[in-house]
Amino acid sequence: MFKVPEHQVAGHQALKGRLGPVVDDSGRFYKPLQSDERGKNEVAFYKSLSSKTESLIPDNIRRFFPVFYGTELVEATDGSGPKPHLVLQNLNAGLKFPSIMDIKIGTRTWYPQASEMYITKCLKKDRESSTVKLGFRLCGLQVYNSKESGYWKPDRKAVAKLSAEDVKMVLRKFVSDEGFDSDHPDCSVASIVLGGPNGILSQLRELKAWFEDQTMYHFYSCSVLMMYDKEKALSGGDPVAEVKMIDFAHVGKGNGVIDHNFLGGLCSLIKFVSDIHEYSLKDSQEKQISYGNGDI
Amino acid sequence: MFKVPEHQVAGHQALKGRLGPVVDDSGRFYKPLQSDERGKNEVAFYKSLSSKTESLIPDNIRRFFPVFYGTELVEATDGSGPKPHLVLQNLNAGLKFPSIMDIKIGTRTWYPQASEMYITKCLKKDRESSTVKLGFRLCGLQVYNSKESGYWKPDRKAVAKLSAEDVKMVLRKFVSDEGFDSDHPDCSVASIVLGGPNGILSQLRELKAWFEDQTMYHFYSCSVLMMYDKEKALSGGDPVAEVKMIDFAHVGKGNGVIDHNFLGGLCSLIKFVSDIHEYSLKDSQEKQISYGNGDI
Repeated sequence: MFKVPEHQVAGHQALKGRLGPVVDDSGRFYKPLQSDERGKNEVAFYKSLSSKTESLIPDNIRRFFPVFYGTELVEATDGSGPKPHLVLQNLNAGLKFPSIMDIKIGTRTWYPQASEMYITKCLKKDRESSTVKLGFRLCGLQVYNSKESGYWKPDRKAVAKLSAEDVKMVLRKFVSDEGFDSDHPDCSVASIVLGGPNGILSQLRELKAWFEDQTMYHFYSCSVLMMYDKEKALSGGDPVAEVKMIDFAHVGKGNGVIDHNFLGGLCSLIKFVSDIHEYSLKDSQEKQISYGNGDI
Repeated sequence: MFKVPEHQVAGHQALKGRLGPVVDDSGRFYKPLQSDERGKNEVAFYKSLSSKTESLIPDNIRRFFPVFYGTELVEATDGSGPKPHLVLQNLNAGLKFPSIMDIKIGTRTWYPQASEMYITKCLKKDRESSTVKLGFRLCGLQVYNSKESGYWKPDRKAVAKLSAEDVKMVLRKFVSDEGFDSDHPDCSVASIVLGGPNGILSQLRELKAWFEDQTMYHFYSCSVLMMYDKEKALSGGDPVAEVKMIDFAHVGKGNGVIDHNFLGGLCSLIKFVSDIHEYSLKDSQEKQISYGNGDI
């Protein structure tokens, strides 16, 4: 009944007898509950989302979070017996060949109340990865290419450290059909996946508007997922692409202050994505012009 | 000809034989050039603002920076002889009784390329002050009260560490005419100074829109000044209030990335200011309603 998720691009994986998440056929995702404060914190966050503060989160924002079905004892994948798991919506269950990018948002991943040891560890990672420079880091991604060649799935550790220029290239490949091995990915699905009222850019901006105002939560070390299915997107599928937020083990109270750390990183990501979108529009206009000339 | 500025709320002061800035009667502000990289960096920034990259900075944004008149040898206030000074516009020269707030923006004041020693020093200050929590810290302020009582000018070191609630109270006092010693400042000039097309909120949002897009500069340890003159504001003065950016010793290149650190902090400040503005509008509506009832 349970199996290892096929399209996990970041986080702990249930491979080689290690502890990791599993999925079932009904579209649910079972995430092992971390045994320390992190596990308690993540359950508390999901409960606060789906119960008492419900009315405080606008409906258009609620859809950015996975549906929460409670916790359940599930056989752990490391053979240690039944363990409590978070039961969540399997976010890519509806996508046949999902292209996915997992981006950890923020110029820092540590929170003010954390221990010195934890802060030192996070700060080191933040400085070694692109977190401090870009305001986010890529935790992993896969891009569907074709039935024959499958997915382009670059090394996780390498993508977390990429420079601004390299991140731009990866984002171009993320919305391309060809050119993964070259410096000229075709960006052929950029306008449909990124643009439009239901595209990724529009969703990221909706999320941003909420972050400019909400002072309930601070999301440390939390990721934004960007997902789409090329075939579905090209055939007018609805939604054409999805933006989701995941990983809430380090969510803290906002105490009347906006999450300026997350918001700054989100704005940085939006600028990157919007540049790729504009680049692709210009590129396709140029192609149209040159085709047009050819016809005359 | 030169004198110590009357209305300096933060930064080094030319008092007790120390080195600090001076002003003259023609509206110029002379800031001693720091002898190390910081001095060179600040001159380079002002030169880049006013010369070669000129066309890249939109006109509506240029007005947020002090006018730069070059550098000049001026007698240092610590008696060490003539020293190079930056010659800048004296920003409050046109204000008779200026209320001023100096706010250092950003969730961190250190830049990725800095030395370990510098980063450790800044990080400590950022964690001890409100920088990490609020995304900014108050470096100093003065609020004009009346000819008799002069200015309310709380201790600099204390205001830098204030909590979110305390910052809200200081911001209320900043736009009040009475109530500095109580928990009920009257916020009587809030709507005129903060609101409207030329008010502080509108200017901060204009600056924010630029920061969402510009990838030229990263402004570490830079301050936003908010200034107004109560009498001028109340008598329909133009401008009713001014927002300026100052202190560019640690400005670095953006390298194709937006300044997510500054932008996050600026958004946090905007949320605080807009909350005070809304609070004052609601407050004045309630007063009107209760006066109205009294008339009936």
